[in-house]
This record gives sequence, structure tokens and C-alpha cells, in this order.
Amino acid sequence: MDRFLGIDIGGTKVAFAVGTSDGAILAGRRRPLAPTGDALRDLARIAEDATALLASAGLRASELAAVGVSAPGPLDSSAGLVLGPPNLPGWTRAPVAEVLAQALGRPVRLENDANAAALAEWRFGAGRGEDDVAYLTLSTGLGAGLVLGSRLHRGRLDGAGEIGHASVEYPGEACACGLSGCLEAYVGGAAWARRLRAIAPGDSRILALAGGREALSPVHAVEAARAGDAFARAELQRVVEYLSRGIANLCFTVSPAVVILGTIAVAAGEELFLAPLRERVRARLWPRLAAEVHIVPAALGERTAELAGICVALEALR
Amino acid sequence: MDRFLGIDIGGTKVAFAVGTSDGAILAGRRRPLAPTGDALRDLARIAEDATALLASAGLRASELAAVGVSAPGPLDSSAGLVLGPPNLPGWTRAPVAEVLAQALGRPVRLENDANAAALAEWRFGAGRGEDDVAYLTLSTGLGAGLVLGSRLHRGRLDGAGEIGHASVEYPGEACACGLSGCLEAYVGGAAWARRLRAIAPGDSRILALAGGREALSPVHAVEAARAGDAFARAELQRVVEYLSRGIANLCFTVSPAVVILGTIAVAAGEELFLAPLRERVRARLWPRLAAEVHIVPAALGERTAELAGICVALEALR
Repeated sequence: MDRFLGIDIGGTKVAFAVGTSDGAILAGRRRPLAPTGDALRDLARIAEDATALLASAGLRASELAAVGVSAPGPLDSSAGLVLGPPNLPGWTRAPVAEVLAQALGRPVRLENDANAAALAEWRFGAGRGEDDVAYLTLSTGLGAGLVLGSRLHRGRLDGAGEIGHASVEYPGEACACGLSGCLEAYVGGAAWARRLRAIAPGDSRILALAGGREALSPVHAVEAARAGDAFARAELQRVVEYLSRGIANLCFTVSPAVVILGTIAVAAGEELFLAPLRERVRARLWPRLAAEVHIVPAALGERTAELAGICVALEALR
Repeated sequence: MDRFLGIDIGGTKVAFAVGTSDGAILAGRRRPLAPTGDALRDLARIAEDATALLASAGLRASELAAVGVSAPGPLDSSAGLVLGPPNLPGWTRAPVAEVLAQALGRPVRLENDANAAALAEWRFGAGRGEDDVAYLTLSTGLGAGLVLGSRLHRGRLDGAGEIGHASVEYPGEACACGLSGCLEAYVGGAAWARRLRAIAPGDSRILALAGGREALSPVHAVEAARAGDAFARAELQRVVEYLSRGIANLCFTVSPAVVILGTIAVAAGEELFLAPLRERVRARLWPRLAAEVHIVPAALGERTAELAGICVALEALR
């Protein structure tokens, strides 16, 4: 059976995995990533680590069918370039595919992390067997990967799935991207953390949990809400409300069979987050469509990092 | 070369055409459609007319490669059912594909009118040669047809492209569909006509053009705006503003290479409508994406009715 190498590049870590087209992982490794400011140097080190992992699995690079890389956007998937995400300093038009293809001698495909995770959840996770799947990241920012008609839909300039910047309020709050009213400005982790730091009551449980205002982040809101804290529960309700606007608009636009939510939605769970979110989304849809929209948590958890890159590699052969 | 029969069913007329896969029309006919309240009777008459048109072109139904039908939604394309659009009384779960397939002895595909027009503009009109095309109808209601990755994207329950019911205002005005804040409630022809009848100033040019308040419709707003009427110009600006919200959200979701606008946008033209719309959409997008979004008028005009059905028939063979 064909072997694939997947490389998942995050802002703070990189994960390598060798696997097969049925999702079996033969070897894996993770390490912290501390970008040096020089993308070529960072990439050379990633290529070395990839080769070392292959060796440990008794494989030569020449035995790989393809290599897939998942990286933060914005990027140019057809040219294989990472365009300069804020958390990868120095990676301005970084030639990821070219450098790795030269080092490994195999075809390399590059996709943004939301698209790669969407492919993984569609092939092996909560979207398995469906033609039309939307996967939403809910981390620092908010992005979606869309598998439509069983194909990854990238759109012009890899612009599809940027639903974090569709508007959900008019006039809306300023977004870090320069626009206003963006969904990400209301529910993205970075924007939400800023908001929590600004407005968390001085005597609140959430502040105690974080151990200080500057350390406050969405995970503390989830934790405090679970413990019954009123401020934190209201915050979750606010996020659910805005997210329901974005998901309802997404449903009326592409009508996915399943909407898969990662990270914070998984952490917050059914009662606090997913059940109220489903209710709010359904109230924004026609009854005929509402009954058929399935909003579910991501199924792969920690396995996403390994499978995302491998699923990108699998796309190289389609 | 293969022959295809296209049937375009509207609320007030039906168009028949026989053509080839390169868009040549060999024979065509249009007639008014006055629904009798009995869908099977209406469909039998449509089948008779189709057979008569084929005979006039020297063809037997058995010589057709496929038959395509374009009809108002909601419908179930996979079952070939029209589900009961308001302008086709009695067409509740009307078995369009089955009745016509029995009468003509050939495979029949059914698509909603926005999808069918999108296919026509993608194959033969303003979207020719592009992978990702969005076509927006701007008539009584507002709907979109999406060709993504060179395939018609229907979504679960044919729900894709219902962007007329994505929200563009919170809290928003009531929509005829039962939801609120829907784009269609702000820019759809029926909603706009109601608004014009309610608020057009008594001494306005638009009222004089219509010859009375009850006759007022969007075409009078376009005509009066062209003549410089301030009320009509403000109305067009309002429509452009809301439409720009919907199109920007569409772009951040599916990132089409081209957004094609029909009907009222074509009638209103560049200066009054398309140029200001482009400017407002671009202001709502990132500069990187804005430069690459092309908002253009539909190119097929009256030919849409003939080509839409034929393009649906072509889908039957893919």
C-alpha cells in the first residue's frame, strides 16, 4: 500500500507522520517550532526531521507516493507558497512545496490548516461518507474548510472558507484584519481573549481561574461557565449567538450535510455550547433545512495533526 | 452531434428548445403558462408541446440524448419533484421528471431556475472558462446558482445558493419566508415593490412613471433613477448597499472567480448599479481578494431561457 508523509506546521509546533491512504499512522513525531525568522532555514530543518522520521520507519523518501503539508494561511496552494502568516515571522512567500520537493524528491502539496483538517474530518472523522462537509476551526482565528461534492473547494486565491471575515453585525466591531463586523471579531480566540481581559469583573471566577487579567483566555471562560459562573455563561451565550449567524449564512450558501466544529466547541461540550448552538442555528433556517443540518464536534482530536498532512498528500494523487 | 431538449418552466410562461452541446439552438418555442391547479394536466400539456416542437424540427424524442427542465424552487432535484412554489399552484411534489420521462422516453433532469441559469452562464455566457462561478437572480426573489470546481453545487436538499435568505441585518426586517433580516427582504423584487408602494412620495417621478401606486415596481425605480429622480436614486443605493453585504459574505465563503448578476442589474446598468456595487463589495473584502472579484452582468439575456434547460440536460450526461 502507498505511503504518504504528512507535515503539519503550526505557529508553535510541527508534527510529522507517515501513513497510508486508509488513515493508518506508521510513524509520527512532534516537536516545538520556534521560527528563526528565516523560512528557508526553518524549512531545511523540517526536511531533515522528515527524513529522520522516514529513516526511523525504515523508509526512503523515494518510496513515498506523495507529501502533504498543512500550514497557516494565507497561502497560495497552487504555487505551494506560505504568504506570511502573523505567527510564522519571516515566512513571506515561503516556497514550502519547492523546498520540500527538492529535499525529498517527491511531489508536495500545500493546503491551509482549515482545509487540511476539513479533509481529515471528511475522510476519517465526523464527515465520513458525506459529499458536502464544512469544518470550522475555532482557535485564535476562525476559518472553515469546505469539502463540496467530495472535493476540497479552494475558490479563487484560496479564498473559500474565510467565513471568519463574513459580516455578522452592521455596523460591526473592528476586526484585526482591517474590516469590521467580521465573525472572527466576535468569536475568534484572540478577539475573545482581548474582550475578556477588558471586561471580566474583578471578583469573577474566570479571573481567579486565569490567575490574572493578562492570562485570561477563552479556555478560562469555558472552565468558569462549566462551574456555573454567570459572566462566563453569558460570554458563551454571546459567542453561540454570533456563531449561529455565521453558520446559518453558511448553510444558506453551501448547504453542507454536516458542520463540524473543532477546538473550543469540543472543549465546551454539548450542554454549554453545541446544544444551544444547534438551537440558535435552526431558528435561523427554514424548518425543511433545519432538520437536516447536523452540527457535530470534530472526531479526530489529537489525531488531526497527523492525518491532516496525510490527507493533503492524498489530494496530490486525485 | 447529440441533441438535447430543454424546458424552462416559469410562473407565467414556458420555453422549449432543442439544441446541441455547443449551445446551438435548432428549434425553439415559447408560450404563456396558465397553471390549471392540476400539475399532472399542466405537465401533460408541456409534454405535448415538447413533442410538437420536436416534430417541427424533424426529430423524434427517441433521438434525444437527454431532457433538462428548469423550474422554480423549492424542488428536489434527485427525485425530480417540484415541491410547490407559490407561483405554480397545485404543483405540490409535482413529479416533473417522471411524467416527462414517461411521455418522452428519455432521461430527464430537473434543476431550479437559478442553478439552470448558472449552468448556462458558466457554459456559454459571462462565466465561460471559469472554475468557480456564482450567478445571482434578481427578480421577484433572490437566489444564486453556484458552479464550483466546474460542477453545479446543489448542497443537501438542494439548499445551496439560497443566499436570498442569508441575513444582512440584525435585527432585520421580516421576510416573506418567515425569517428576518434576509437579503431578499431588502433587495428581492416583490419586497422592493411593496416598499416602493408604501413609501414613494406622492409627487415623485417614479409614481408618475408607474401610473399609480399599486402598479409600482422596481423597473420604475430604475427608470426614474436614470432620469435623475432623487428618491429612486436613493432606493438603488439602498439596494446596492444590502446586495454588497450579501455578495461580500458569498465571496468570503466560496470565493468565486466571477459573480454574474441578471435581470434588474442588467436593466439598471453600469453607472447606476454595477459600478457602485463593485465599489461597495470591494470595500467589504480584503484588498488581495477585492482585486480579483469580478462582478459582471449576465451575458445571455433572452437566450437564457433556451440554454438553461439544455444545460440541465447536459448535466444528465456528466
